[in-house]
Amino acid sequence: MNARVLIMAGGSGTRLWPYSTKRTPKQFLKLIGGRSSFELALERAILVTGPEQVFVSTNSVNELHVWRQMRATGIPRANILVKEGDYDTGGAVFSALRRLKKDFGAKDDDVVTIFPADHVINPLAEFEKTLIFAWATAAKHNCLVTLGKRPDEPVSSYGYMLVHSEPDEKNRAINRTILRVERFIEKPPREKAQELIATGRAFWNVGIFSFPIGAMLSEFCRYFGVDEWQAVTDDQLQENAGVSFDKMVVERVAELRVLEAGFNWLDIGSWKALQETLTRDDQRNTSEGEHILVNTADSMVIGGGRPVVLVGLEDVFVVNHDDALLVISGKKIDDLKAAMPILAERYPRLVQGRPVVTVCTPVPEAGKPATSSGKHLRDTVASALCQSYPFVEEVVVTSVGAATRVREQ
Amino acid sequence: MNARVLIMAGGSGTRLWPYSTKRTPKQFLKLIGGRSSFELALERAILVTGPEQVFVSTNSVNELHVWRQMRATGIPRANILVKEGDYDTGGAVFSALRRLKKDFGAKDDDVVTIFPADHVINPLAEFEKTLIFAWATAAKHNCLVTLGKRPDEPVSSYGYMLVHSEPDEKNRAINRTILRVERFIEKPPREKAQELIATGRAFWNVGIFSFPIGAMLSEFCRYFGVDEWQAVTDDQLQENAGVSFDKMVVERVAELRVLEAGFNWLDIGSWKALQETLTRDDQRNTSEGEHILVNTADSMVIGGGRPVVLVGLEDVFVVNHDDALLVISGKKIDDLKAAMPILAERYPRLVQGRPVVTVCTPVPEAGKPATSSGKHLRDTVASALCQSYPFVEEVVVTSVGAATRVREQ
Repeated sequence: MNARVLIMAGGSGTRLWPYSTKRTPKQFLKLIGGRSSFELALERAILVTGPEQVFVSTNSVNELHVWRQMRATGIPRANILVKEGDYDTGGAVFSALRRLKKDFGAKDDDVVTIFPADHVINPLAEFEKTLIFAWATAAKHNCLVTLGKRPDEPVSSYGYMLVHSEPDEKNRAINRTILRVERFIEKPPREKAQELIATGRAFWNVGIFSFPIGAMLSEFCRYFGVDEWQAVTDDQLQENAGVSFDKMVVERVAELRVLEAGFNWLDIGSWKALQETLTRDDQRNTSEGEHILVNTADSMVIGGGRPVVLVGLEDVFVVNHDDALLVISGKKIDDLKAAMPILAERYPRLVQGRPVVTVCTPVPEAGKPATSSGKHLRDTVASALCQSYPFVEEVVVTSVGAATRVREQ
Repeated sequence: MNARVLIMAGGSGTRLWPYSTKRTPKQFLKLIGGRSSFELALERAILVTGPEQVFVSTNSVNELHVWRQMRATGIPRANILVKEGDYDTGGAVFSALRRLKKDFGAKDDDVVTIFPADHVINPLAEFEKTLIFAWATAAKHNCLVTLGKRPDEPVSSYGYMLVHSEPDEKNRAINRTILRVERFIEKPPREKAQELIATGRAFWNVGIFSFPIGAMLSEFCRYFGVDEWQAVTDDQLQENAGVSFDKMVVERVAELRVLEAGFNWLDIGSWKALQETLTRDDQRNTSEGEHILVNTADSMVIGGGRPVVLVGLEDVFVVNHDDALLVISGKKIDDLKAAMPILAERYPRLVQGRPVVTVCTPVPEAGKPATSSGKHLRDTVASALCQSYPFVEEVVVTSVGAATRVREQ
């Protein structure tokens, strides 16, 4: 049995706007101690399987971000699985598993674990231990195992799972119970979440799933009404492009086993969630860059370039970006998502994001370093581009092409 | 009898920081429909006396601002009275009146009216009418007359006057009572202000005073303990440099007559006060520059350069300036003043403000326009300066000197 990790990095979330944009989704923003949540996901994946067994599902918009943040990890570039269509997580998982079977020789009993790319998890040792037992359980029962986190407050932006009261079994090695799901409750209102928690049988759906690849492909076959995974057509995938992995598989699986997660877990879904990852001062403020906070509590200042002064505020988030300034109440943090259509209409460029321009120069001859004139040429091209197009975020110069050409994402 | 206006424009208020700085006090900021409160004061003064009789008391830091905003009004440059010392309003008024006597031939019965430079007043016709009767009263009784505004809410940042209940006389022409002050109450707490208002005898001290110059100089003599105004020495002024006009004269005058002001009056002492002068939307927000407001009420966005997005806020002021960003709660607007020492220590340059550089080029020969080569020279110098010193706010080129020189304020 081989254990593989599949990181889902195709998201286009803009809830960390103006930093996150369609061109630079939140999972690639280096806001967590100078690292991105995608980089943290890579680190977790490599810890449990080593770099060769880590795969990344993404789309063509994100491909360059993925490669740039992955390059130094030792994961082969071929392990980036670019979706052929614009699928939600359902089609994306299926399409990635099909590639693992076709191109990477995966066997039916190989266990795959899905990692979202926008989580912060610690401590890593606890995570690794829990995950290895999730694999073992998935392999032993040839079933789908998910990690569930006991809620510590009635957050309404998460998915909840209500489990049966009788434990399925107890995993003695990590002293945690394995349970079965009775039903799913997606993003309940706060009061409903409170009720669920009061039953003592509620878990947050962490979005980490382990399964033997054969068992999972059978579930997909059931959904698409075919006998073999090879029979699922691209037209079928296209017709179901908007269906999530949860709707397509998770919520329809006859028996979903839940293993309680012992680690700390945070979904970086908003500025408020990001705040949880940062160090706070005496007044529970978090801040980055130059600032003065006077009579201010539970607030966040992010982004630099010029001093930010906050006076007399409570639970207010100030996001200071070169292109736009966002000031948002912590109590209304979810309204940013609601504001995105207005933003997209009024400032499409700011929602779209800055393009990254890649300049591909000829590969130096094998064994020889790039000539200094070649280096000079590249520097000249890069600086000319930045000057002519101030809206270009960055010029990446790579030696991968056979001729000098410019690509705009 | 001559009627003169003396505009007090020596203030160094930074309560509209980061727009207002020590180098550019708030009265010179063009934030009221594109005009500054100093320009509005000039307009009021000219309306009632014509430009020749308008004088401006200021200091050397503000002199260039005063001249630039005054240049097109027809007020002679000689009417700028630059204080010789760093005096509060007491010394400033005395020093200006002494200049009027010495250099402008003022007679003892000439009436002078003091205008603060940071007020917004309307309608002008009502203001003009009230003021003319204040002069007449001052001249008739050879006394100090001040305008009092009936409070419409218990603001604690104003000075209050409690008047005697028996009216002194009634000015039939404007159908307003003239009253006498029983006592002064400077910046009372809100509850105290409420009590004062409940007496029905409270007025805000608007800071506009009319008096015959001779009577006023006698009051100064009484303060300094001398018989004639010529006997007041510069040493005496220096010793009392920190004493305000209110403390030196107004609160010590045996009989201060108060004429009720019928106009709308606003002291531009804070961002919240400035908000009162601006047009509001349906949610009572005021804004300037590109912005999107979502679920936001009673708030203000000022300053441009990049889109500002406010979400879920109430009574929050966002001041977006090139050098710094201020976000302040309307409920804590006075805390900005308290924050200034921290700011001055941490970011002295931002509190000090950007320098204005004046380039003085040779005066063209009488009757001849500046030569094109002369113009070209000036443009070249100005653009070179702006490029080399990005922190310079503006380069002003004037043809007043005999040689090319650069002055930094």
